Amino acid sequence: MLEAMQDWDLVVHHLIDHAAREHGSREHVTHWADGTETRTDWAGIRRDALKMTQALRRLGVGKGDRIATLAMNHSRHLVTWYGATGVGGILHTINPRLFEDQLDYIVNHAEDRVLLYDAAFQPIVDMMRSRWASVEHYICFDPPPGSDAIAFEDWIGAEDGDTEWAPVDERDPCMLCYTSGTTGNPKGVLYEHRSTMLHAWAGIQPMAFDFDATTVMLPVVPMFHAASWGLPWAGAITGVKFVYSAVNDPEVLCDLMDREGVTHSAGVPTVWLAMFQHADETGRDLPNLKQAVIGGSAAPRFMIERLMKHGIRVAHAWGMTETSPIGTVGAPTFDWADKNFDEKVGVVQMQGRSIFGVELRTVSLDDMSTPLPRDGETAGALQIRGPWVVKRYFKADQDAVDAEGWFDTGDVGILHPDGTLQLTDRTKDVIKSGGEWISSVELENAAVGHPAVAEAAAVGMPHPKWDERPVLFVVKKAGAEVTGGEIIEHLKHQVAKWWLPDAVEFVDDIPHTATGKISKKDLRERFADYTLEV
Amino acid sequence: MLEAMQDWDLVVHHLIDHAAREHGSREHVTHWADGTETRTDWAGIRRDALKMTQALRRLGVGKGDRIATLAMNHSRHLVTWYGATGVGGILHTINPRLFEDQLDYIVNHAEDRVLLYDAAFQPIVDMMRSRWASVEHYICFDPPPGSDAIAFEDWIGAEDGDTEWAPVDERDPCMLCYTSGTTGNPKGVLYEHRSTMLHAWAGIQPMAFDFDATTVMLPVVPMFHAASWGLPWAGAITGVKFVYSAVNDPEVLCDLMDREGVTHSAGVPTVWLAMFQHADETGRDLPNLKQAVIGGSAAPRFMIERLMKHGIRVAHAWGMTETSPIGTVGAPTFDWADKNFDEKVGVVQMQGRSIFGVELRTVSLDDMSTPLPRDGETAGALQIRGPWVVKRYFKADQDAVDAEGWFDTGDVGILHPDGTLQLTDRTKDVIKSGGEWISSVELENAAVGHPAVAEAAAVGMPHPKWDERPVLFVVKKAGAEVTGGEIIEHLKHQVAKWWLPDAVEFVDDIPHTATGKISKKDLRERFADYTLEV
Repeated sequence: MLEAMQDWDLVVHHLIDHAAREHGSREHVTHWADGTETRTDWAGIRRDALKMTQALRRLGVGKGDRIATLAMNHSRHLVTWYGATGVGGILHTINPRLFEDQLDYIVNHAEDRVLLYDAAFQPIVDMMRSRWASVEHYICFDPPPGSDAIAFEDWIGAEDGDTEWAPVDERDPCMLCYTSGTTGNPKGVLYEHRSTMLHAWAGIQPMAFDFDATTVMLPVVPMFHAASWGLPWAGAITGVKFVYSAVNDPEVLCDLMDREGVTHSAGVPTVWLAMFQHADETGRDLPNLKQAVIGGSAAPRFMIERLMKHGIRVAHAWGMTETSPIGTVGAPTFDWADKNFDEKVGVVQMQGRSIFGVELRTVSLDDMSTPLPRDGETAGALQIRGPWVVKRYFKADQDAVDAEGWFDTGDVGILHPDGTLQLTDRTKDVIKSGGEWISSVELENAAVGHPAVAEAAAVGMPHPKWDERPVLFVVKKAGAEVTGGEIIEHLKHQVAKWWLPDAVEFVDDIPHTATGKISKKDLRERFADYTLEV
Repeated sequence: MLEAMQDWDLVVHHLIDHAAREHGSREHVTHWADGTETRTDWAGIRRDALKMTQALRRLGVGKGDRIATLAMNHSRHLVTWYGATGVGGILHTINPRLFEDQLDYIVNHAEDRVLLYDAAFQPIVDMMRSRWASVEHYICFDPPPGSDAIAFEDWIGAEDGDTEWAPVDERDPCMLCYTSGTTGNPKGVLYEHRSTMLHAWAGIQPMAFDFDATTVMLPVVPMFHAASWGLPWAGAITGVKFVYSAVNDPEVLCDLMDREGVTHSAGVPTVWLAMFQHADETGRDLPNLKQAVIGGSAAPRFMIERLMKHGIRVAHAWGMTETSPIGTVGAPTFDWADKNFDEKVGVVQMQGRSIFGVELRTVSLDDMSTPLPRDGETAGALQIRGPWVVKRYFKADQDAVDAEGWFDTGDVGILHPDGTLQLTDRTKDVIKSGGEWISSVELENAAVGHPAVAEAAAVGMPHPKWDERPVLFVVKKAGAEVTGGEIIEHLKHQVAKWWLPDAVEFVDDIPHTATGKISKKDLRERFADYTLEV
């Protein structure tokens, strides 16, 4: 190595140093659970993060130690991102919506030594405390008056901030996020300083988060979900003004967006649904955003249409905890100007194309060693590789990737000739019938198009001749009446005849995972004794 | 190292692989010197670059070898960027405007083994060939009919492209650019794969090149100038459509911009001046660009105003060969929406703020170990550090930076509280009078505002009492008449009284460097015997 250019480690300390130096007075607004609002700025975030590293060192917490949070979006949570990593520790953001046994598992698996939490999650702390053996210190971000919890502001307030970040290597871990785990125990993805930095740089590009110094971002995606899509890191690069809300009430969100001049937001589809509902009920306009990032699960067409009609650019993204999470973004294609509105919506509705860094391929569902063509027709198991993709889960004894570095996403998709990804199913949900594959998701999407259907789940049930055949479980809308035959009739116009379910079963509810997705695992367990009539 | 995330080297091979895979059919248009046009695409660039690596290997050229170009902007030149680096070699782009002794020096210093050149530079090759001892192979990009030169297309046409990029380490060098050298011999800056990749990722952000899949870029900045500002690397990230012109005729450029739907361009101020002149002479509109990047030297206010009035966003950038070159960009500030047009022009006219990665400071001109405040008033020597800043020049026996990694740019500037850089002079041109500093550039800018002045250069001349005092050398406009007293009178309204030149000397011409800047070195030599009347 000649060392012709300068040495500069890819460590997240640079992010907060830059933001505080070049965008120090740029605001952070927090709307707290109790309705109060506080303001700080990038210089304040850095000062407090430095104080936090001192407070952590005083507790004997340092390099490689796991520091957990159980919190909504707010500026103190952001301080913790930079403070925990600043001491050389590993930030572990816990999803408070996890079930009890998952909360038990992940904190013990992570061996968290410190846990910082919102007062709103005091019941979880009280419930779990005796089972969380590794946690030595509990600190509350916003203790109510009279609480005997250690208050975050008091804890860091005892320090002067006159310190330095811990030296770390760029391949050292800086953050730990557990997958929600639709099967088996949650798995920990350990992000490194280097992977986080490259992901952040890639994230600010026009085709993804589109960040510059004028950006005002209200991230609805929680800081405990998939590294908040990397926004807290990426925002530091251009000194984004962050507007946080510790509550997800659509009225609060719309008020904040209007009042604080929010230009960018990001959230799962249900967030936008709630905004629509609020707008419809109150007659108020949707906020005048420049861009809305939608990810987490596929956005329906009407949602994309409505946002785009309102002049909001929609970046429909796909990724997962294992991919930091940005994999693909549905951004304008090179021939954008030649497309009409419907065609544009069609492009955005697919899951977009991979951004530079990550690479996609599909392989045969029957034989994972056979790559499939990008023909826009053949569905296969989606695989991904790149610098911000997991190699080995935390504490795992073998790699999560194959010899060529491909990570199997568990998704089923079609790759188009221009690289556009079209997701069709999950590997474990796709239904194999007579040697061919039926997409459970397409059946469900077609079914919920029926006016009487509130929710639908298609599951492959064992069949003596065809291996599996689809059964559709349906929750009717309140007060609606519909027969199985009518639903089959409705589906006939939308899917191939051999895809039609062998049975439609009406149920009162469909089980969900902690992140709100349909839990086919629980559905299959509930109907373990189900037998198809042949 | 846990290797929790995937290994992925920061090497430029990834750029062309991604562009060919995800944007393979996206066009590259070249307008050649003879007026013909050719088209290829990103897949074609990669295929030809792979062929070139085979052709280089056949010549025994490989890892670490220097492969030089003497060429304008065209698609074959781009192939060479990826082909030379693809074989593990070091691309050396030579500025054909260098003087004979500089051309001699840099090729011998670089020990170039292969030289690829445009037919337009055949006279340079013929003149220098006997002195370029290291060059074993000459290949012509566009030999005219009847030429006996080896034609690039024939040379790579003999290969099948069925090969792989050479394995390289991310800290291996990939490119070599020499500074134009206003003093002493040119110095070689050796870019590494890693520094080039980080610079490219940083470059595509909205505040800099603003690249996405819809971008159509006509880079007027030559591929031989400061790595063409990194555009050939950055463009691959989002699959930019490149439109190249091997000639810099403003009519050709305007035609290409209109016809090919160019959205982005980049060039030095004189490029835009020529476009204005062409528009004024012909009555045609300026092209409808989305963004114009101006760098290389400071753009005058009227230029920025005219472009912005036409609806073109101006990114006024500062950097140097030693900084890859992006240092700062004059992009919209957070309070952009609150500024009126004049204020916006004022922001853009300064040299902008550092983008994430690089860090700036100013130090006292009297004592370089004393950092100065960012007070918007105090001028000092500008220093920079970061991952794409030089550490050691090629073949130098010591580092070009201080113990803390600061590289002294040779520029004099003021840093404002928000980090905005305002350049005021070059360290070696600033005039020291009575212990205080006078900006030669400000004197010159004020002088050229006089209607009779074509060009002006301020130089500090020895003075027994004040150490130095400014003398202004002036070239009058053709046919114009003006006295030294009238020019002093004109300056009185614009600079402090003690800044006023002690003498105004009228000259027929002012010497320039190879890159078109005023050569104060030559001016000082010409007036070595000059004595101020005291």
